[in-house]
Amino acid sequence: MQNKNLSYFKNTKIVLVETTHPGNIGSSARAMATMGFTKLELINPKIFPSKVADERAVAAKDILDKAKVRTNLEEAIKDCHYVLGLSARPRENMPEALTPQQSAKKWAKYAKNNRCAFLFGTESNGLDNESIYKCHNLVSIPVSEKFSSLNLAAAVQIMCYEARLAVIENKLSAEFLKEIEYPTEKDLQHLINHFEKLMHKVEFVHYQQKMPLYARLRIMIRRLKFHRQDIHILRGFLKEVERKLKK
Amino acid sequence: MQNKNLSYFKNTKIVLVETTHPGNIGSSARAMATMGFTKLELINPKIFPSKVADERAVAAKDILDKAKVRTNLEEAIKDCHYVLGLSARPRENMPEALTPQQSAKKWAKYAKNNRCAFLFGTESNGLDNESIYKCHNLVSIPVSEKFSSLNLAAAVQIMCYEARLAVIENKLSAEFLKEIEYPTEKDLQHLINHFEKLMHKVEFVHYQQKMPLYARLRIMIRRLKFHRQDIHILRGFLKEVERKLKK
Repeated sequence: MQNKNLSYFKNTKIVLVETTHPGNIGSSARAMATMGFTKLELINPKIFPSKVADERAVAAKDILDKAKVRTNLEEAIKDCHYVLGLSARPRENMPEALTPQQSAKKWAKYAKNNRCAFLFGTESNGLDNESIYKCHNLVSIPVSEKFSSLNLAAAVQIMCYEARLAVIENKLSAEFLKEIEYPTEKDLQHLINHFEKLMHKVEFVHYQQKMPLYARLRIMIRRLKFHRQDIHILRGFLKEVERKLKK
Repeated sequence: MQNKNLSYFKNTKIVLVETTHPGNIGSSARAMATMGFTKLELINPKIFPSKVADERAVAAKDILDKAKVRTNLEEAIKDCHYVLGLSARPRENMPEALTPQQSAKKWAKYAKNNRCAFLFGTESNGLDNESIYKCHNLVSIPVSEKFSSLNLAAAVQIMCYEARLAVIENKLSAEFLKEIEYPTEKDLQHLINHFEKLMHKVEFVHYQQKMPLYARLRIMIRRLKFHRQDIHILRGFLKEVERKLKK
């Protein structure tokens, strides 16, 4: 990812409101770090700082060390231009709800040059109504109806992942991309000829069956989306078979 | 989500290979459950069954109870038509790597009527090369270069989330959708007239400034994307102000 995207992450704080379990604070720090986010604020955490949190954060411990602890949500978001609240259930008079993708795209419009916040409520009840009213949009993660209990850090992970995708233009990192060389029509025709010749030679093909079999072979070989390297392997193999047959 | 999508989830197993920490097995069970997946297979888990795993799984404990434990990956995937392997780093001679989204879309084509598997390797080293070669595609989750250490259950969460999106047509659940009534042009014009009348009345507008101010007001009110309800609130308020001024 290019450095030009850093501002999106620096401009956005992850705000955990009244988290009960310190382990979830640690896991959330790790989750946000993997997606490029570094600013954590904690509103009235039940237990913090904590060894359990540090252990779960693993190498993201410096996010915990730098985390701001506050007694007041308003204080945390007063400089923010766009605030998203994660919510597992709809409310009366709620701000417009969006999917994680929709919200991430909207966030990306603000976050380049403006401060933003993602708010996450308690493990048991989520955000209270007062916090919900402070959000510009809610985000609803599409969980299973049969099992909707998403862990706090898992929600942080998904939201930050979608935000990251909105910024990095959802591409594979270069190291995972390999230039694939595809065979030309001539390469494919050589392979087909080679197969046909050998099928004939080993009498796999009786004369009367020849046409339908060859037609199927040609269609198959063009359908299989070979890489150029595959053709080399197959033709090398066929050549060796030929050589052995001549002996 | 409609029942017609159940087959996708039932046809797909989450396979954790040689997981070290039982807590990660429990968190993975919970993660997959939130996204609709129920079939878990464990290849040589270091510690299983385990109290720690049960605690982390919370209500997804029945997934752990039903999980198949095997000594052999081949056994787990022999009935699968499409196998995805999660991989944090590229390898020599790897199968084609895809983004989570790309892989989820490809998975969805198979999973309706064919068995599939998502493979996750160890916490420290991921999948070994032998396991990688058994995959039809690799999946690379786009993590931060500065902090790439994604927790195992977090990877399960993201992969299953993307798979779920590929099946449920990424929409908000109905309970989060409210029908928004937008104002008509006539409603907006009434609001504008009302404002202008009152601005004039309270002498907010001196005659010479009137035209540019009114122009800005008209543009602003059409830009603000009011809901119909907002117009009612504002006009009700203006009416009350008018009434008080008459006294």
